[in-house]
Amino acid sequence: MPVEKRRSAKSRRAIYDAALALVTEIGYPRTTIEGIAARAGVGKQTIYRWWSSKADVLLEAFLDLGERTARAAGQEPADQAIPDTGDLAADLKAVLRATVDELRDPRFEAPSRALAAEGVVDPELGRLIVAKLLEPSLQLYADRLRAAQRAGQIRPGIDPRIALELFVSPLAQRWLQHTAPFDYEYTDTLVDYALYGLAPR
Amino acid sequence: MPVEKRRSAKSRRAIYDAALALVTEIGYPRTTIEGIAARAGVGKQTIYRWWSSKADVLLEAFLDLGERTARAAGQEPADQAIPDTGDLAADLKAVLRATVDELRDPRFEAPSRALAAEGVVDPELGRLIVAKLLEPSLQLYADRLRAAQRAGQIRPGIDPRIALELFVSPLAQRWLQHTAPFDYEYTDTLVDYALYGLAPR
Repeated sequence: MPVEKRRSAKSRRAIYDAALALVTEIGYPRTTIEGIAARAGVGKQTIYRWWSSKADVLLEAFLDLGERTARAAGQEPADQAIPDTGDLAADLKAVLRATVDELRDPRFEAPSRALAAEGVVDPELGRLIVAKLLEPSLQLYADRLRAAQRAGQIRPGIDPRIALELFVSPLAQRWLQHTAPFDYEYTDTLVDYALYGLAPR
Repeated sequence: MPVEKRRSAKSRRAIYDAALALVTEIGYPRTTIEGIAARAGVGKQTIYRWWSSKADVLLEAFLDLGERTARAAGQEPADQAIPDTGDLAADLKAVLRATVDELRDPRFEAPSRALAAEGVVDPELGRLIVAKLLEPSLQLYADRLRAAQRAGQIRPGIDPRIALELFVSPLAQRWLQHTAPFDYEYTDTLVDYALYGLAPR
């Protein structure tokens, strides 16, 4: 790798780390490009060369953190599709268990909460979070449900984009609100209820 | 009503209105007891006589707003149980449609978002919101599902406290994140999916 390129990668990593640390410590509204630059030990212009706003920096820092975590777990970042072993319940349970682990990881937890909170009251940031972080990962669930629908494991009339919310949204709400236990037993139960319903069969 | 009592009720209403307006305009962290008192036109001591913290004032202001809205909709505030007509799907759909109306009401929307956002990053406030506002209303759904279970309309092994999350949490997440349409068709679909499942029957 050429010296210039290595230096860029190192600066980017320092900038991502600084952005995640600042939003955790002082919150999104008080985090600034200047503050990120100072903490990362780079000039403000270095940041403006690559990103146009603090929201841009922070969203990319999250994508990068997600990719690093995937790599550490032995996955290729490109290989983000939900596994299809033919057993839909088992595949969904495995992915939701991994999500529980990730959301409990302190490196994710504090900056994710800071970003989620601000997205609730700042409509522009909220739209960016949904478009860049949330919807792309929800589409992976929709794709897996569509494959199950083709295999006859999901009823034909079901809308996958709504169906996925039956297990993804409860997980997100429990994590945000700490209402009740947040563990594998819970996520396994959500998948079973969502697939087979609450009414007698 | 004695003059003293009428005056109290009037002060309380002014204090609630001031607290909801301030949290909407400047956010929870910058809202203070002093600010609420000044806006309501009462002395700080009047507030401290009835409440011990700004969180207390604000949570009661929400409870009061909910009761007033219920009364305006022709319900007695005490009569908060979910209707039981014997048709579980119809009863849940009616309540979720009313919730859509409430969450779209501008009087609720802005202060609710401000409070929800702060609860995500302030663990103590988060616990208060869950204990005083959220869990009491979730218990009404759990009660209705338990009645349905006794009537044989919900499978015996189902845990009502988890089951209710299949339709309540997606609604809350869509409202918080504006990911997709938030209407009666959506809530009706959630109830149908939750009760009858996604897999073929």
